[in-house]
Amino acid sequence: MAGYRRYHKEDKVSYSLGITLTFELLKYKKEYVNKIYIHSAIKQGDTLDKMELLCKEAGIKIEYTDKIFNVLSQKENCYVIGEFVKFQGKLKQDAPHIVLVNPSNAGNMGTIMRSSLGFGINQIAIIRDAVDAFDPKVVRASMGAIFSTDFEYFDSFNGYTGKYGSSDRELYPFMLDAKISLHDINPGKKFSLIFGNEAAGLPAEFASVGTSVIIPHSADIDSLNLPIAASIAMYEATRQIFGNTVK
Amino acid sequence: MAGYRRYHKEDKVSYSLGITLTFELLKYKKEYVNKIYIHSAIKQGDTLDKMELLCKEAGIKIEYTDKIFNVLSQKENCYVIGEFVKFQGKLKQDAPHIVLVNPSNAGNMGTIMRSSLGFGINQIAIIRDAVDAFDPKVVRASMGAIFSTDFEYFDSFNGYTGKYGSSDRELYPFMLDAKISLHDINPGKKFSLIFGNEAAGLPAEFASVGTSVIIPHSADIDSLNLPIAASIAMYEATRQIFGNTVK
Repeated sequence: MAGYRRYHKEDKVSYSLGITLTFELLKYKKEYVNKIYIHSAIKQGDTLDKMELLCKEAGIKIEYTDKIFNVLSQKENCYVIGEFVKFQGKLKQDAPHIVLVNPSNAGNMGTIMRSSLGFGINQIAIIRDAVDAFDPKVVRASMGAIFSTDFEYFDSFNGYTGKYGSSDRELYPFMLDAKISLHDINPGKKFSLIFGNEAAGLPAEFASVGTSVIIPHSADIDSLNLPIAASIAMYEATRQIFGNTVK
Repeated sequence: MAGYRRYHKEDKVSYSLGITLTFELLKYKKEYVNKIYIHSAIKQGDTLDKMELLCKEAGIKIEYTDKIFNVLSQKENCYVIGEFVKFQGKLKQDAPHIVLVNPSNAGNMGTIMRSSLGFGINQIAIIRDAVDAFDPKVVRASMGAIFSTDFEYFDSFNGYTGKYGSSDRELYPFMLDAKISLHDINPGKKFSLIFGNEAAGLPAEFASVGTSVIIPHSADIDSLNLPIAASIAMYEATRQIFGNTVK
């Protein structure tokens, strides 16, 4: 039997680290689960019983071992790991999309997934070079949102627009040098919010793509951090949907 | 000469880890700087020359040593550390405030500082128990915003309102069970945006404080992450200020 090894982006499987995350995995992507690992230090009780029952019902094998935890998890209180086969996503043609151009940080990608699910825009196009969306750090930062997110990789922005950029799709690249303020946008049902790399932002040529947008802020900071900018944009762009939901 | 030791919250000094952050420290809080440490692996050139010149002009001692880097910095490309005396802050009585009740995560606190400076609300009340705002992780996540932020600790929320809660201050606790939607608020010039702990949120009794607010989102996530919720709230609350700034 081969030993466990660290996660690599070429692997066919990835991992949910922690029991809460693994419950999310079992809830939304059960059919992709290979195996659940349980550490000997786990607390006995209802939660563990529930996990074991869920696995039994779904015919998912549980392996009781501590070894894989030493390899995959730096966190002290991680006693459950779910191993799942990476699933393929495809965006919905008529839905709003988030487009991330060259995102480089795993935590940011996961946080954006969580926000985008929260605002009902769980459709993410990722333009390479880009961080691996299946990195366990992304999975963890998403708090399970990745299991309800459709995402699709493209080698170029043109690759994305070639497939999804029909004439009725509104494109909003977010840039410091922009045509309009986020406060003034009022998108329809089919739009793409486009964000650049954490350090570099979007290349200047995006100024000619659709309607460029800025989130106005003081000159005291260079820019907002990426998941925050993306989340503010989603909040504003979904005002028509969520703006009237409080009783 | 005593050896270097890890940062502790009781220490009188804290640290900026990295050259960009240390430039921010020298720009905004020069008078609090004790010393600058420079690692032997730093690249020679204009940036280093500028750092050395700045220190010379300000009469700040530079120590060329690698030892403190092993103790304080886990990052590989950190070649400059600034040591500064912790400064005391006091909030502005008539300005908008952010109030963080029991924040527990250093990265989140720093990210909130950065956003709050971006939206011109660099006034943060912190209600204990709370993470140490001078933790080098906060300093780093703030990207230097901490050096332009006024923050003040309180032992209780009543301690805060006793000092700053005059009758003309609008209080907006952010809660899932809230009176109004963020989309509908329209605050004046003197308001407080109040947020609970990352895991627990605000205690239920905050429902009777001012006007409770929710950021509406889908039921697919439990909540938005704290710095994202706070940043979206600041974006909306400063609409009158930043909503008309684009040419």
